[in-house]
Amino acid sequence: MQCARVWRGLNSLCRVGHHRAWKRTQSHTAAARLDLSGIYPPIATPFTAKEDVDYEKLEENLQKYAKIPFKGLVVQGSNGEYPYLTEEERVEVVRAVKQSLGAGKLLMAGSGCESSRATVQLTEKMAAAGADAVLVVTPCFYKGKMDSRALIHHFTKVADSSPVPVVLYSVPANTGLELPLDAVVQLSQHPNILGVKDSGGDITRIGLIVHKTKAQDFQVLAGSAGFLMAAYCVGAVGGVCALANVLGQELCELERLCVSGCWEEARVLQQRLIEPNAAVTRKLGVPALKQAMEWFGFHGGSCRSPLQPLTEAEIQQLRRDFSSNGWL
Amino acid sequence: MQCARVWRGLNSLCRVGHHRAWKRTQSHTAAARLDLSGIYPPIATPFTAKEDVDYEKLEENLQKYAKIPFKGLVVQGSNGEYPYLTEEERVEVVRAVKQSLGAGKLLMAGSGCESSRATVQLTEKMAAAGADAVLVVTPCFYKGKMDSRALIHHFTKVADSSPVPVVLYSVPANTGLELPLDAVVQLSQHPNILGVKDSGGDITRIGLIVHKTKAQDFQVLAGSAGFLMAAYCVGAVGGVCALANVLGQELCELERLCVSGCWEEARVLQQRLIEPNAAVTRKLGVPALKQAMEWFGFHGGSCRSPLQPLTEAEIQQLRRDFSSNGWL
Amino acid sequence: MQCARVWRGLNSLCRVGHHRAWKRTQSHTAAARLDLSGIYPPIATPFTAKEDVDYEKLEENLQKYAKIPFKGLVVQGSNGEYPYLTEEERVEVVRAVKQSLGAGKLLMAGSGCESSRATVQLTEKMAAAGADAVLVVTPCFYKGKMDSRALIHHFTKVADSSPVPVVLYSVPANTGLELPLDAVVQLSQHPNILGVKDSGGDITRIGLIVHKTKAQDFQVLAGSAGFLMAAYCVGAVGGVCALANVLGQELCELERLCVSGCWEEARVLQQRLIEPNAAVTRKLGVPALKQAMEWFGFHGGSCRSPLQPLTEAEIQQLRRDFSSNGWL
Amino acid sequence: MQCARVWRGLNSLCRVGHHRAWKRTQSHTAAARLDLSGIYPPIATPFTAKEDVDYEKLEENLQKYAKIPFKGLVVQGSNGEYPYLTEEERVEVVRAVKQSLGAGKLLMAGSGCESSRATVQLTEKMAAAGADAVLVVTPCFYKGKMDSRALIHHFTKVADSSPVPVVLYSVPANTGLELPLDAVVQLSQHPNILGVKDSGGDITRIGLIVHKTKAQDFQVLAGSAGFLMAAYCVGAVGGVCALANVLGQELCELERLCVSGCWEEARVLQQRLIEPNAAVTRKLGVPALKQAMEWFGFHGGSCRSPLQPLTEAEIQQLRRDFSSNGWL
Repeated sequence: MQCARVWRGLNSLCRVGHHRAWKRTQSHTAAARLDLSGIYPPIATPFTAKEDVDYEKLEENLQKYAKIPFKGLVVQGSNGEYPYLTEEERVEVVRAVKQSLGAGKLLMAGSGCESSRATVQLTEKMAAAGADAVLVVTPCFYKGKMDSRALIHHFTKVADSSPVPVVLYSVPANTGLELPLDAVVQLSQHPNILGVKDSGGDITRIGLIVHKTKAQDFQVLAGSAGFLMAAYCVGAVGGVCALANVLGQELCELERLCVSGCWEEARVLQQRLIEPNAAVTRKLGVPALKQAMEWFGFHGGSCRSPLQPLTEAEIQQLRRDFSSNGWL
Repeated sequence: MQCARVWRGLNSLCRVGHHRAWKRTQSHTAAARLDLSGIYPPIATPFTAKEDVDYEKLEENLQKYAKIPFKGLVVQGSNGEYPYLTEEERVEVVRAVKQSLGAGKLLMAGSGCESSRATVQLTEKMAAAGADAVLVVTPCFYKGKMDSRALIHHFTKVADSSPVPVVLYSVPANTGLELPLDAVVQLSQHPNILGVKDSGGDITRIGLIVHKTKAQDFQVLAGSAGFLMAAYCVGAVGGVCALANVLGQELCELERLCVSGCWEEARVLQQRLIEPNAAVTRKLGVPALKQAMEWFGFHGGSCRSPLQPLTEAEIQQLRRDFSSNGWL
Repeated sequence: MQCARVWRGLNSLCRVGHHRAWKRTQSHTAAARLDLSGIYPPIATPFTAKEDVDYEKLEENLQKYAKIPFKGLVVQGSNGEYPYLTEEERVEVVRAVKQSLGAGKLLMAGSGCESSRATVQLTEKMAAAGADAVLVVTPCFYKGKMDSRALIHHFTKVADSSPVPVVLYSVPANTGLELPLDAVVQLSQHPNILGVKDSGGDITRIGLIVHKTKAQDFQVLAGSAGFLMAAYCVGAVGGVCALANVLGQELCELERLCVSGCWEEARVLQQRLIEPNAAVTRKLGVPALKQAMEWFGFHGGSCRSPLQPLTEAEIQQLRRDFSSNGWL
Repeated sequence: MQCARVWRGLNSLCRVGHHRAWKRTQSHTAAARLDLSGIYPPIATPFTAKEDVDYEKLEENLQKYAKIPFKGLVVQGSNGEYPYLTEEERVEVVRAVKQSLGAGKLLMAGSGCESSRATVQLTEKMAAAGADAVLVVTPCFYKGKMDSRALIHHFTKVADSSPVPVVLYSVPANTGLELPLDAVVQLSQHPNILGVKDSGGDITRIGLIVHKTKAQDFQVLAGSAGFLMAAYCVGAVGGVCALANVLGQELCELERLCVSGCWEEARVLQQRLIEPNAAVTRKLGVPALKQAMEWFGFHGGSCRSPLQPLTEAEIQQLRRDFSSNGWL
C-alpha cells in the first residue's frame, strides 16, 4: 500500500523511527514478548430466553468474527457480562471460544475477581482453558483502600503465579477507581505483566503511561473506540473496543489508517465512530451493544437481569446514533 | 428508668405519640412483621495466617457479642469482606453463626450478588442456613445502567422468591451508587421487603425515606455509627454499625438514650463516637476495624488480600482517634 | 409552654444540662459574643423587568418578614444572587435592609469575594453599611489550591481586619469545595470568628464540628431546611434556610419544637418541609425560590440572566412538592 | 521544510485533503473569519510585593514573548488570576498588553463574569481596550442551573452584542461544570462565535465537537499542553496552554510538528511536556506556573492571596517534574 511507504519516507525525514518498529527492537528480556498490537472485540455473551449461556449463538458470532482481521478476542471483559456469570461459566465460555478460534488469533481472558486468591485461582483455570493472556481488572469494592500499595500487591501476586502473561485493566466507569499511574509504572517492570487496557479515556494519562514505561516495552491498549485514534497518536498499540462487536471491520480499518500514518483519513473515520461507540458503552451500555449486534448480523439478544432491555425510546436513540453517522 | 417515663409524658404534651409505638400498631399485612429495631454489628470475618476462615476465633467473638444487648448480627455485610469469600464460604459462615446465636437474636445475612439469578439462589441458601432476614446490596458493576427500573426489577425478583424477609442495602462508598429514593419508596410496598440499611449518611434523604414510606411500616436502619443519633432523630429504628464490632455496648447505650428521649446525654456520647467510627470505616477501612477489635478484646487479625495491613503511621492515627475521645 | 418545662425536667434526669444554656455560660473571651441562635432567611433580591434591583419590592418583603420571629436576615447569601450583583449593589442592598430592619434583629451580610483583598474591603463596606456580622464564603475558583493552608490564611486575614464578627460559609453545591474540618477547628479559635454556616448537609461532619469546637463556644448554623432538625439534634444553634423566604413562620416553629425538646412534633413538621426545601434549592434553585415566594405573598419575580425562569413543567413539579406536603 | 511537503504528498495518497486547508475553504459567511490557529500563552499577571499589578514586569515578559512565534496572547485567562482582579484591573491589563503587542499577533481577552449583563459590559470594555476577540468562561456559581438552556441564552446574549468575535471557554477543573456538547454545537452556528477553548481534556468530546461543528468552520483550541498533540490529531487548530508561559518555544515547535505531520517527532516532544504541564496546572497550579517562569527567565513572582506560595517540598516536586524530562 502506497500510503505506508510514503509514511516511512516521511518518518525518516522527521528523524524518528516508526513507533511499532521501535517498540519491537526494545525488549527488556531476552525472551520474545507476546505482541498485543491490534484490535480486539470484548465479545458479548449471548443468552437463551432462560438466561443460560447460548453456546450455539456464540459459535455463530465467532465464525463471523473469524473473517475480520482482529488480533484476537477478549473473553469476559466488561461487555461479556462476566460479573453475572459463575466462575464455572466464565471458564467454560473461554474453553468454547478457544475451540473455535483460528490459528494466530490471541485469546485474552478476563480473570479478575475481588480477592487476590480468587484471581490467582481463576487465572490458572483460564490458562488451562486456553487463554493466551489474562486481563485482570482492578478489585474495587473496598475502593477507599485500593491504593497503589494494595493494587501493586494484588497484581504482583497474580502475575507471579500466572502461567500466562497478564494485562492490567483499568475501567473507572464500572469500578469507580482508576489504576494509579505510579502503580502502572511499577507493575510495568514485572516480567509477566505485558501491558494495560485503559478504558478511562484520559489521553494525557495514556500518553504519560507510554512515556514512563518506554524502557519496558509495555503495551497500552485503548479501552474504547471513542479515543482509539488519539490513543494510537500518543503511542498505544491497539484497542479493546466494545464497538468491535458491531463494526469490527471498520475498527480494523481505523487501526490500519493510524498505523500507516494516514491520519487525515483516520480522522474522518474516527469521527463517525464516536457517537455509535458512546451509545453502546457509556450512554446505553451492554443492552445497546447487544441490540446493535442484531442490526449488523450478529447474535446479541438480551442480558442477564438486572440489566434491562432498552426502552423503545432508547432503541430509537441508538438507531439515530448509528444512522446519523451513516452506519444504518 | 425514669428518663423514659418523663419522655412519654413529654410526648403526650407534644401531642404526638411515640414513634416506635406508632409503628408497631400499623401493619399493612395481617401477619406480624419482623421488628428490626435495634443495633447490629456487621461482624468481621477472622482469618488464619493462610487467609482461611478461622471458625474458632469467630466463635470466640460470638460468645463475647452474646453478652451485649444487640438486636442481632449482620453476617456478610461489607465489613465481613463478603466480596472476598466464595459462595460456599458465605453460606458456611452464616451456618456457623446460626449455631451459636442465642434465642431471640436476629441473624441478617448478606446475600447480594451482581446478577439477579445468583442473588435469588444465594438468598435461598442463606435462608436454609438459618438467616432470619437477608440484606441485599445494590448490584453495581454496570452502575450506569442500575437505574430505578433495573433496581426495582432486581429487588422485586429477589423478594418474590425469598423465603425470608428482605432488607435493602445502599452503600455508595463501596458501590458507587445510591439506591434511588423513588425505588426505595416503590419497593417499600412489597410485602416481603421490610426496610433499608442506608450507609450513605445523607440525613435529609433518610428523613424523606421515613416520611414517604410511613404508610408501609418500612424500617430504616442507619448504616454507620457516625449519624446514628441523627438517624434516630429523623425516624430510623436502629443501626448496623461497623463500630459495634468494637464498642458494641456503647452503641447499645446510645440506642437506649435516643429511644428514651435522653437527647442531651445521647449527643455527648454520639460526639465521642464519630472519630473512632470514621477511622474504622471511611478513613482506614476494614483493616482498621480488625486492628481496633484486637485492642478491645476481640479477634480481628488480618484481611484477605488485596486489603493490606495498616502501616505504622495508620495504626497511630487509629489509636489517636480512639484515645482522643477517651476510649483508649 | 408546658413542653419546655417538662423538657427541662427530663434533661435533669438525663444528667446533662441544656445545650444552649451551657453554651451561653462558656465564653473564651471576656466580651460577650454575639448570639447567633435562631432562624434566618437568606433573602432573595427582587429585580425589575430590566433586571435592576427593585428596592420597593424588597421593602415590601422586609415588612412581611418583620412579623416573623426570625433572629435576623442574611443579605447576599447564595439565594440573594450576590455573584450577579456589582460590589456597589451588594453594599447598597445591605444599606437598604438595615434602614428597614427592626430593633434586635441581626443583619448578617455576605461579603465573600475570590481574593482576600477584595473580601477585606467589602467586609469593611458591609460593616459601614450596617451589617452586624459578615458571612464569608470560601473562595473557590482555584479549588485545587484552596486547601486548609490557603483557607485558614484567607479567613484569618479577613477576620483580623473585620470591624464585625465573621461567620464562615461552606456551600459545596455552589463552590465545589467544602471548608475542611481541620480548618474550621483552627479558625474557631479566632476571637472574631463566631461560627459557621454549613450547607453541605453532612450531619456526621456537623456533629463533629460541634464536638471539636466546644471549647470555643463556636456556633453552627444549618445551611438548609432539609436537615435543620437533625442539625439541632447534634448541636447546631440555628439555621440559614432558603425556604425561610417562603415558609418562615413554619421554620421558626420547627426551631421552637427542637429547642424545647418536642422532637416527635418536630419530626412531623420537618418531614413535610424536606421536599419543598429540595425544590427551591438543589432541584430547581433560585428561580423556584422566587416562584414559590409569589405563591406565598412575597415578591419573587425573575432572576438575573443567565438564571432562567422555570419551564411550565418545572412550575408544576414545584407546585407538587409544596401541595403534596400540604402547603398549597 | 521537507517534512511538510512529503506530508502533503502522503495526504493525497490517503485521498483526504489537509485539514487546515480544508477548513479555510469552508466558511459559512461571506466575511472572512478570524483564524485562531496557533499557540497562545494565557499570560500570568505579575504582582508587586504589595499585591498590586506590576506593569513593568508584565512589559518585560511581553518583550520576551514577542520573540516566540505565538499566534497571540490570552489575557485574563484562568492563569492570569482574573477572578482576583477588579474589573478596572482586568481592562487595564488588556490595555497595557495591547500597547506592547506586535503587529499580527492576536489579543484574546477573558471577559467572562457570572451575570450576563456584567459579561456584556466587560466584553465591550475589552474590545475598546484593544481585544481582537474575547474568551468567555461559563458562569458557574449556580452550577445546578447552568444547563444548556441557560448557557445558550448567556453566550448568545454576549455574542449578539459583542463588537469582537467570541470564543467559548470550558474549564471544568475550575468551574465544576463542562459546557455541554449540545450547547457548543448550537452556539457554533452563531456568526459571532468563532470557537471554543476546551480545557477539560476529554479527547473523545473534542473529536466529537470537531465532527459536529464541521459545517460551521468552528475552531477548537486545546486548553492545556498535556493533550495538545492528541487534540491536533483529532482536529483542533491550536492551543491555549499555561505551560506556554514557560516553554513557549517548545510548544510552538510541537504545533509545527503536528501541523506538518511529523507525528513521531511530535510524540517524543509531547511526552516530555506532560509532567511539567501537570505540575504547573492541575497538581500545583498558578503558584507553580509563576515559580517555573522565574527559572526560565520570566517574571512570575507571587500570587494574590488566598493563593499561597509553594512549600519547599512542592518546589522540589516542581523542579523534578521539569528536570526528569530534561528541561532543567
